[in-house]
Amino acid sequence: MTETSEEMIREIARAARRASRVVAKAPNSQRNQALVEIAVALRKSSAQIIAANQEDLEMAVAKNLSSAMIDRLTLSETRIQNITDAVCSIAKAPDLVGRIERRQVRPNGLRIARMRIPLGVIAMIYESRPNVTIDAAALCIKAGNAVILRGGSEAAASNRALGEAVSVGLLAAGLPAETAQVVPTTDRAAIDILLACEAEIDLVIPRGGEGLIRAVSEKSRIPVIKHYKGVCHVYVHAKADLEMALSIAENAKVHRPGVCNAAETILVDRGIAQEFVPRLVERFSSIGVEVRGDPETVVLHGAALLANEEDWGTEYLDRIVSLRVVDDLSSAIKHIEDYGSDHTEAIVTADEKVAEKFLHLVNSSTVVVNASTRFADGGELGLGAEIGISTTRLHAYGPMGAEGLTTTKFIVEGDGQIRQ
Amino acid sequence: MTETSEEMIREIARAARRASRVVAKAPNSQRNQALVEIAVALRKSSAQIIAANQEDLEMAVAKNLSSAMIDRLTLSETRIQNITDAVCSIAKAPDLVGRIERRQVRPNGLRIARMRIPLGVIAMIYESRPNVTIDAAALCIKAGNAVILRGGSEAAASNRALGEAVSVGLLAAGLPAETAQVVPTTDRAAIDILLACEAEIDLVIPRGGEGLIRAVSEKSRIPVIKHYKGVCHVYVHAKADLEMALSIAENAKVHRPGVCNAAETILVDRGIAQEFVPRLVERFSSIGVEVRGDPETVVLHGAALLANEEDWGTEYLDRIVSLRVVDDLSSAIKHIEDYGSDHTEAIVTADEKVAEKFLHLVNSSTVVVNASTRFADGGELGLGAEIGISTTRLHAYGPMGAEGLTTTKFIVEGDGQIRQ
Repeated sequence: MTETSEEMIREIARAARRASRVVAKAPNSQRNQALVEIAVALRKSSAQIIAANQEDLEMAVAKNLSSAMIDRLTLSETRIQNITDAVCSIAKAPDLVGRIERRQVRPNGLRIARMRIPLGVIAMIYESRPNVTIDAAALCIKAGNAVILRGGSEAAASNRALGEAVSVGLLAAGLPAETAQVVPTTDRAAIDILLACEAEIDLVIPRGGEGLIRAVSEKSRIPVIKHYKGVCHVYVHAKADLEMALSIAENAKVHRPGVCNAAETILVDRGIAQEFVPRLVERFSSIGVEVRGDPETVVLHGAALLANEEDWGTEYLDRIVSLRVVDDLSSAIKHIEDYGSDHTEAIVTADEKVAEKFLHLVNSSTVVVNASTRFADGGELGLGAEIGISTTRLHAYGPMGAEGLTTTKFIVEGDGQIRQ
Repeated sequence: MTETSEEMIREIARAARRASRVVAKAPNSQRNQALVEIAVALRKSSAQIIAANQEDLEMAVAKNLSSAMIDRLTLSETRIQNITDAVCSIAKAPDLVGRIERRQVRPNGLRIARMRIPLGVIAMIYESRPNVTIDAAALCIKAGNAVILRGGSEAAASNRALGEAVSVGLLAAGLPAETAQVVPTTDRAAIDILLACEAEIDLVIPRGGEGLIRAVSEKSRIPVIKHYKGVCHVYVHAKADLEMALSIAENAKVHRPGVCNAAETILVDRGIAQEFVPRLVERFSSIGVEVRGDPETVVLHGAALLANEEDWGTEYLDRIVSLRVVDDLSSAIKHIEDYGSDHTEAIVTADEKVAEKFLHLVNSSTVVVNASTRFADGGELGLGAEIGISTTRLHAYGPMGAEGLTTTKFIVEGDGQIRQ
């Protein structure tokens, strides 16, 4: 990277810091107005966005990218409509900045509360899907932050076109265009420079494959919110409704096998293994899911292949599932602690006490009773939209929406009180 | 440091991780019982603790430590009584682990909530005051965490004796002694080893001088919650009650000049400068506080020395105050943004609209209207006790109590819901 381009990246970070001071002080109405203007600009420029996306798609075909990747990359009129709808719903969501929480009056008459405020400057580093550019920009603006958007090279033209619409919208609402900046180079070195801008950037959120996320967190001097992978479990307890268990296991595995909240391992209680394992293996086989089981499973149904130690920690992101018979609730929890990723675990049981124990003793970021792991998602959990998922416990744990992009300050109101 | 002692430090970290799993799963009643047993053990062993403290004090005298440092180091029967009272009040405080928050029912019938859980393993790295050993241990245990305590060399014997009482209390309640471990060496290299134990330690909290805190945050591979310094401001607005302003400025500066929430700079609105600056300079002079002012201040009262640029960013921790005349609310806020440390700022004003603006536009971690900056303290703000203060916005901002040592997981309860 040339010295000029290095300086350009640093200037992006400094401009973000300056813009963050303006956007933080703006009233909520102005930030919401900016979101509406962004939606308008996206619609007006949809032809240009689709043309830019076409460039990216031609490159993707030339580079022989997989059809799944090409699908994620593609923008159509319908997809742009969905993206603008999401922006509008973020505009309409309850305001965060300036919200007063946890009021109390102290014995000395001081009135104490917390007021929600923005974090400052967020850097998003992500791959392929261009809709992240808009979702992230919209959530950061809603929360009063500035954002630096550094998407993947395969979506470079699309991201530039989307970023253009965001600038137009911000300016139309009287906010600085630098509130949301798309980094105009996909040179990898740009990421390293951003990750060293400690004075200008408050938080880095990487989204993409485990490789990208590890590289970002190893290099960053700035706090990183992340999850490496989702090795999610469904534990079918001895007192489970077996039809419900089949339906949840199937949905958790195959509804979208390529995402982080898909199940990778089904744990079956020994008490029902003889009856349930064969039914489960048959169900999976009938829908084209490869089952890799422990020896007990393989004995119970010949269609299961023998799993090895590595399988228990693998995020397949594919139509493959591992299957293990466990003694009881404690062994299930032990397996989850040994091999899980703190993402999402579900139990299927009709026993309320067992469900309660599972909820208390499993400390993954989302814990589910009698429902699919696929609900571990900001939208499904009522956060409105999601900027990422954290599997580390500092600041945010689990799906993270606009509120995760804020913090609170203490406010104290008195009548002249001094400390004695 | 020898290989054996390096391995010993790593084993402390691993033992803390193992203990953290046990203490996290224990019921709240058992953790509270441990706190009570610790209070009992402290009382029973007060003679040994005071004898150990005597060793430290003799060393301190031999090393010619300042009388202020010796005072901070000293433990007496009364101080031990205060420490045990604090532990008992933490035991009686509302429980955190397992607390359910923000319940909601989704349109598909899923019942969503958040459940509070411990962070895991905390490492405290601190200087001189031995009461931190007990305060930190008690807050970490209350929140269901394990803690590694690494105090300063000047309190080594006292900290060992206090740690002994903590172990006795934990064991008496059936919890592992490794839930709270005092590092048995004051070799500086031990800190570096702890700061590299990423897999075993979740959070580092340094407390002490700016030098210690900078050294810890530069070296740590683990997230650090910290504040470097407190350059706190009192802004006396044109519509202030001047008697109240004098009383607050004095209290903020001299109630305890050596602590981080003491005021360092008083900003005076030009509208009242002619009347108020001479009164303020006289008040400070009469109580032995050196005033360093901008040229306008010096013209208004000859007792003020001329401040230089460096003064505005200095945390004096002493009976020195800087004083500046500002044009209006905006210039006051601009000064705070340019020179402040995001710790605590106060305004004195009778104008509610101005107070409201100050509360919204100043994003320091504690913002105060018509009261002393000295209230920026966990106890005074109703947190029960304080483990530290954060001036960075991730995870915690401002004074941090036991709740700051926890996070929340999402819990989801359904009746067989799958994702469509």
